[in-house]
Amino acid sequence: MKQSKMFIPTLREVPNDADSKSHQLLLKAGMIKQIASGIYSYLPISKRVLNKIEAIVREEMEAIDGIEILMPALQPSELWQESGRWPSYGAELMRMTDRHGREFALGPTHEEIITSLVRDELKSYKKLPVTLFQIQNKFRDEKRPRFGLLRGREFIMKDAYSFHASEESLDATYQDMYRAYSNIFSRVNLKFRPVIADSGAIGGSHTHEFMALAEIGEDTIAYTDGSDYAANIEKAEVVYTPDVQHTEEQPLEKIHTPGVKTAQQLADLLGRRLDEIVKSMIVKVDDRFVMFLLRGHHELNDVKVKSYFGTEYVELATEAEIEGIMNAKPGSLGPVGVDKIEIYADYSVQDINNLAVGANETEYHYINANLNRDFTVTAFGDFRFITEGEPAADGSGPVKFAEGIEVGQVFKLGTKYSEAMKATFLDEQGKARPMIMGCYGIGVSRTLSAVIEQHHDDNGIIWPKSITPFDLHIISVNPKQEAQRQLADELYATFSKDYEVLYDDRTERAGVKFNDADLIGVPLRILVGKNAADGIVEVKVRKTGESFDVNIGELKAEIDSLYDTLD
Amino acid sequence: MKQSKMFIPTLREVPNDADSKSHQLLLKAGMIKQIASGIYSYLPISKRVLNKIEAIVREEMEAIDGIEILMPALQPSELWQESGRWPSYGAELMRMTDRHGREFALGPTHEEIITSLVRDELKSYKKLPVTLFQIQNKFRDEKRPRFGLLRGREFIMKDAYSFHASEESLDATYQDMYRAYSNIFSRVNLKFRPVIADSGAIGGSHTHEFMALAEIGEDTIAYTDGSDYAANIEKAEVVYTPDVQHTEEQPLEKIHTPGVKTAQQLADLLGRRLDEIVKSMIVKVDDRFVMFLLRGHHELNDVKVKSYFGTEYVELATEAEIEGIMNAKPGSLGPVGVDKIEIYADYSVQDINNLAVGANETEYHYINANLNRDFTVTAFGDFRFITEGEPAADGSGPVKFAEGIEVGQVFKLGTKYSEAMKATFLDEQGKARPMIMGCYGIGVSRTLSAVIEQHHDDNGIIWPKSITPFDLHIISVNPKQEAQRQLADELYATFSKDYEVLYDDRTERAGVKFNDADLIGVPLRILVGKNAADGIVEVKVRKTGESFDVNIGELKAEIDSLYDTLD
Repeated sequence: MKQSKMFIPTLREVPNDADSKSHQLLLKAGMIKQIASGIYSYLPISKRVLNKIEAIVREEMEAIDGIEILMPALQPSELWQESGRWPSYGAELMRMTDRHGREFALGPTHEEIITSLVRDELKSYKKLPVTLFQIQNKFRDEKRPRFGLLRGREFIMKDAYSFHASEESLDATYQDMYRAYSNIFSRVNLKFRPVIADSGAIGGSHTHEFMALAEIGEDTIAYTDGSDYAANIEKAEVVYTPDVQHTEEQPLEKIHTPGVKTAQQLADLLGRRLDEIVKSMIVKVDDRFVMFLLRGHHELNDVKVKSYFGTEYVELATEAEIEGIMNAKPGSLGPVGVDKIEIYADYSVQDINNLAVGANETEYHYINANLNRDFTVTAFGDFRFITEGEPAADGSGPVKFAEGIEVGQVFKLGTKYSEAMKATFLDEQGKARPMIMGCYGIGVSRTLSAVIEQHHDDNGIIWPKSITPFDLHIISVNPKQEAQRQLADELYATFSKDYEVLYDDRTERAGVKFNDADLIGVPLRILVGKNAADGIVEVKVRKTGESFDVNIGELKAEIDSLYDTLD
Repeated sequence: MKQSKMFIPTLREVPNDADSKSHQLLLKAGMIKQIASGIYSYLPISKRVLNKIEAIVREEMEAIDGIEILMPALQPSELWQESGRWPSYGAELMRMTDRHGREFALGPTHEEIITSLVRDELKSYKKLPVTLFQIQNKFRDEKRPRFGLLRGREFIMKDAYSFHASEESLDATYQDMYRAYSNIFSRVNLKFRPVIADSGAIGGSHTHEFMALAEIGEDTIAYTDGSDYAANIEKAEVVYTPDVQHTEEQPLEKIHTPGVKTAQQLADLLGRRLDEIVKSMIVKVDDRFVMFLLRGHHELNDVKVKSYFGTEYVELATEAEIEGIMNAKPGSLGPVGVDKIEIYADYSVQDINNLAVGANETEYHYINANLNRDFTVTAFGDFRFITEGEPAADGSGPVKFAEGIEVGQVFKLGTKYSEAMKATFLDEQGKARPMIMGCYGIGVSRTLSAVIEQHHDDNGIIWPKSITPFDLHIISVNPKQEAQRQLADELYATFSKDYEVLYDDRTERAGVKFNDADLIGVPLRILVGKNAADGIVEVKVRKTGESFDVNIGELKAEIDSLYDTLD
C-alpha cells in the first residue's frame, strides 16, 4: 500500500494527556484519534492490526466449535428488567430512549440478548451444547476513561456464550475456552498469565482473567515461581498461618493522642511498628454498618468482603455516617465498648495482644486492649489483600506481585441468567431444567494496546509478526531521484506478491520518513537510497536496529530468511 | 461445519408480521431474530453471508485505494452543532446523554466525525486525495421499521468519504466509486440499476442511487430500454412538450357540486376525463403557504418542490390550515380570486383552458376558468412525478417503471461539511480552501435482503455462489444407519478440503432435513441415504431442482464440474 494514499497522521510531540505508553504510541504513530473522552476512531494502521487480531480470535473460536453471530448494540430495557440488571447496573450502563419513549441500553455485554435468543429455540438437551460468539463494539460509561484504548467508553470486544445440559459439559467448554484464550494471547505475542479472579457484577461462580503483564496494569497479580498459580490480588486467598506474638496482658489505658489520624501516626507516637497497631474501619454492607479490624500494615479487600457477605453493595462509610454512629472521627475508631454494630476481624489480628486501638473519642486511643476482655468480635475471616512474600494458596511458595492488563476473562455463569429469564431445556427424562451457561470475553482493542505496552522501544512500536499491519516497509529515501524511485517502485511490485508491503513513496524529508517508520514499527525495512543506481539497498530490522547493505540480486533471499526469524 | 453444532432455528410457519419475501425467508431459514422493532440479531447463517459480502466490499474499496478505518458509533453533539445537523436531523437521530450530561448521537452516518478527523491532519494539497471507508452498525430511529432488514433501526453500512483539492479529483473518485459499486452489486449477483437520485437531507449536488430491482421496492425507478437512463421517480425530470388542447374561451361559471371532494369526482360529475380537471393544493414551504395547480391525473412531487424552493421544509397544509387561509375545505380549492398566497402551476396546466377548478367555497366549483383572465400564476415549473410512457430526459424514449430497493448511493457532497466545519487545506499557492468531499454508502444488511428478494423460490433461498454461506450441503439422511453415517463422515472430511461444507449430522426426520436444506439454500447438496452401502449417493442442485445418483468414485469430479457451472 502506498503511504501517500494512506492516512497516518503521525505526531512529533507526545500529547500531554496520554497517560500510558500504548496511549502515547497509538497517538504518535497516527493510529487513533480521540473523538470524545474515552471514544476513539481507529485509523488505517490500527484497523489493519485489529482485523488481524480479530482473524486470530475467529480462528481459535471456530477451532472449538464456536459459531459466529452478531447481536445488536441496542438492547431493550425489558430484557434487562427480566435479568434484574436494569436497576442494578448503575451509571456505567449507557441508556437511551427511542422516539416512542421505549428505553434501551447500549450493550456493555450481551447475556440478556443471547439468553432471550436461545430460550425459544434450544428446547432439548439434544441441541446442547452450543457456543456462540460475536465481535462487536461495546459501550460502558466509565467514570474516568484513561490509558487510551485500555479503559475507553466504546471498545471492541469478542464475547462468547455457551449453553449446556450439564456441569460436565460446561467444564469441558470452559477448558476449551481457557486453551483457546491461551492460544490467542500466545499468537499475538503477549506475555500473559491466566489468574483466578473475582466474578463481579456479572455473577457466576468460577472465573479466570487473562492478564497481560505491563507496567501500567490497572490490576495487580499475585503469582509464584513455583507453579502456575496466579490470582488477581482482589481474589488472592490469604492462607492464615498463625504467628502468635502475645505478651503478658496489661491493663487497658486511655491515652490522649492529639493530631493522630492514621495507624502510622499512632505507631510513630507509641514507638511501635505499623504491624503492631490494629486499625478499625466502618463499612456499609447493604443497609447496615459493620466494623472491620485489621493489622496496621494490611488493607481491607472489598471484593472479599462482598464475597463473604454475598452482596454487591459494600462501601466505606462516609465521615458523616461514622460520626453519626460512633460519635468520633474516622482516625479514632476502635472496638472497645462497641455494641451497636457487629465487629469482624482479619485472622491475623489474633496474633497480637495488648492492642493499640482508637477510643471512639476524637483524639483519644486505648493501649493494651485485649480480645474477650475488652471487646469481642463476631467472626474472624480473610478480609484483606495478600502482601508480597506471603505463601500462595496452592502451597507453591511466597507470592510475587506483577501489574497486569486484563485482556480476557472466562466465566462459569451457571444458571443465573437462565433461571431469571426462564431459559429451560427438556432433559433426557423430559423434565424442564434451566440451561447452564458460560460466558467468555476478550477485549480486542485492549489487546491491541497491551501488545504495544509490551512491544516498543523509545522510538516507537515493534510489531509481532502475527499482527503487524505490514510485513515490510519499503522506503524510497528521495523519490525525486529517478533511480531511487524506479527501483523502489520495482521492489514494491515484486515484494507485494509475497508480503504485505507499506511503500513510503512520499516526498518528505528522509528524517521524517525514518522517524515515521520507527513509530509505525513494521518489522523489516528496505531503504532505497543513494546506492540504488548501483543496485544496492539497505535492510533494517526494526527490533534489533541492525542494518546492512544488500545487493538487490540477493534481496529476496535475505528478506525471506529474516522474515523466518521474526517473532 | 456440523449442523448439530450450529444454531439455525428454522421455522415451519411463515410469521404473521413478516412483510416481505426476504423478511419471511430470513426468519424461516433461522437467519435472524428480532430483538425489538427494527432491531435484529444475525444468526450464524446470515453472519457468514454478511462476512462474505463485507469481504467483497472491502476488496473493491481497496482496489480503488480506499483505506479502511473504524469510527465510533457515539458522536458528540458538538460536532453535529458545527455542521448544523443537530437541530435539523429530527426524530430519526437517536440521541443519548452520558453520565456527565453530555449529549451524543448514535451515528446514522459519519460526515461530522470524518470531517473532524481529517481537518486537523490533511493540511496540504499534497496529501489529497484520500478515500477512507468503514463497515459498521448504524442507527436510525425509523418511524415505521419494516420489511425486516430492509428498513431497520440498527443496520450494517459500508460508508466511505473522499477528500479532494479539486472538482476534477472528486469526479475521478466518484467515477471510481460508481464502478466499484457496480462491481460489488454484480459480484453478489444482484440485478440493479444506478439511478439519478435526490440528495435529501445529507446535502450535495450530484448523486446516484444503486437500486436492486424487486417486487417490494420502496422506491420506483423510471428507466428506458433505449439507454442506461434511470432515475428515482422523485427526481425523474419531466420534459415539457407542449400539447395544447385549447378550445374557445367560455364565460366563468360557478356551479354547485355537492359531495365532490376529489378531482375524479369532479370529472365524473362534469362528464370529463380526469386529465381535463385542474386540481389545487396548498403546501407549506418553510413558513409560508403556496398554492400548486396540477392536471387531475398528475401527482405533486415534494422532492421537486423542495429543490425548486431550495428548502428541506415542504409539507401539505393541514385541513385546519387550509380552512384558515382559504375559508374552504380542501376539496373545493382553486386559483380564482386568490391574492393572499402565490400560485405555482405545473407546465402541463398551460395545455388546457376553460378549466374546472374549486371555487374556494365548500361544495362549489368554477367551470371555464382561464389563465390571465380569471387568475394568474407566479410561475410554471416541473412540480410533479413523471408518468409511465412520458419521454425520458435524455431523449432515449418513453420511460418504464420498476420497483427498486436502494442498496447503495454515491454523492458529491462538495464543500457543505468542510465549509461548516472549517476543514481547509493549503493549495499550491498556499491559499486555504475548503476540501471538496464525496460520500458513498452501501447498505450491507440491506444487500443481504435484496439478494434474497431476487434469489429464492417457494421452498426457500437459492444462494449465489459468491456469497453462499456454504458451497456444499452434505446430508446424512439417517445417521443411525452406520453405513450412512460413516460415508457421510468421510465425505464431510474429504470435501471440506476444497469446499465450505455444511454437514447435516442431526438425528432428525429426513423430511425435516430436506425442508431445512431447501430453506437454507446451499447451492449443491449430497444426500447420503439407503444406497450408501453400495457407494451411491444422490446429488441435488438447489436452483434447478435436478437430482441424480452418483457413484462415489465419480463424486468429486461431478461436484467440481457442477460447482463450475454455478452463478
